[in-house]
Amino acid sequence: MDLNELRNHVAIVEDWPKKGIVFKDITPLMNDGEAYKFATDQIVEYAKKLKVDLIVGPEARGFIIGCPVAYALQIGFAPVRKPGKLPRETIEMEYALEYGTNTLTMHKDAIKPGQRVLITDDLLATGGTIEATIKLVEKLGGIVAGCAFLIELTELEGHKKLNGYDRLILMDF
Amino acid sequence: MDLNELRNHVAIVEDWPKKGIVFKDITPLMNDGEAYKFATDQIVEYAKKLKVDLIVGPEARGFIIGCPVAYALQIGFAPVRKPGKLPRETIEMEYALEYGTNTLTMHKDAIKPGQRVLITDDLLATGGTIEATIKLVEKLGGIVAGCAFLIELTELEGHKKLNGYDRLILMDF
Repeated sequence: MDLNELRNHVAIVEDWPKKGIVFKDITPLMNDGEAYKFATDQIVEYAKKLKVDLIVGPEARGFIIGCPVAYALQIGFAPVRKPGKLPRETIEMEYALEYGTNTLTMHKDAIKPGQRVLITDDLLATGGTIEATIKLVEKLGGIVAGCAFLIELTELEGHKKLNGYDRLILMDF
Repeated sequence: MDLNELRNHVAIVEDWPKKGIVFKDITPLMNDGEAYKFATDQIVEYAKKLKVDLIVGPEARGFIIGCPVAYALQIGFAPVRKPGKLPRETIEMEYALEYGTNTLTMHKDAIKPGQRVLITDDLLATGGTIEATIKLVEKLGGIVAGCAFLIELTELEGHKKLNGYDRLILMDF
């Protein structure tokens, strides 16, 4: 397995979720034990280099990427969720969508001040989700050591929202 | 770490998501690297014993439990999702809630016929989600080798929906 072969495990889906969008579907990659392990191990090595204390990922595909990394490093995982999903005291962050806004939440006790955090998600697209996640982490006193994605959709320029933050991208599309 | 100590990492939340419900929140467990690793390793050992080929978990907390198990065993993970979340051809299964119904979906190509599947979720409550997940797996030709949960809420009797299926429960509440 290498990064070129990993690309073959991403399904290209035309016109989803709406006409004109070419969606990159990582479910075939996750379904293949060797590909999923290879991709995860790249992020594990990156996380080791950054000396992170905690993995944070937005629901639901951020869990798929981040949870095995947390396990491999024997560190914790803190979920970023939509409103109404986390049962204890939360903080919220709103961010702009093409039309309207979206809100993400984290438990107030999810991060100990000063913890070095790696944020994980499957896809860096416009960067709205990841920007809101960074703000949540920092509001809780965490240090964003880096962000790791399987895929960047380069023409959407989400990396512009990550200026000043270290990042790992396994595949460009 | 042992199973008694693991219990201390489950938060008991009164009146959530509504009055009269005492919710069991696993986010503190996931947030503690040692507890999360310990819990996952129990499921990994169980999966080895069952000789499973694939992990299947319902969104979103089923991902948190199942993905590290898939990684540890270098096998694939197939997500069970709400309608409209999986971009390629899916099958659907409806199940009853207290009021109304819910629907879960899987990609049609998520399971190869004959694959031995371990289903993972955080919580066995009334068992509706897990029953629908079992039906999806079997409809795709998979063999449900077992089901693993961190927690069973025993008085809700969800285990009655798992008659004939092997299961691992780490903690009863």
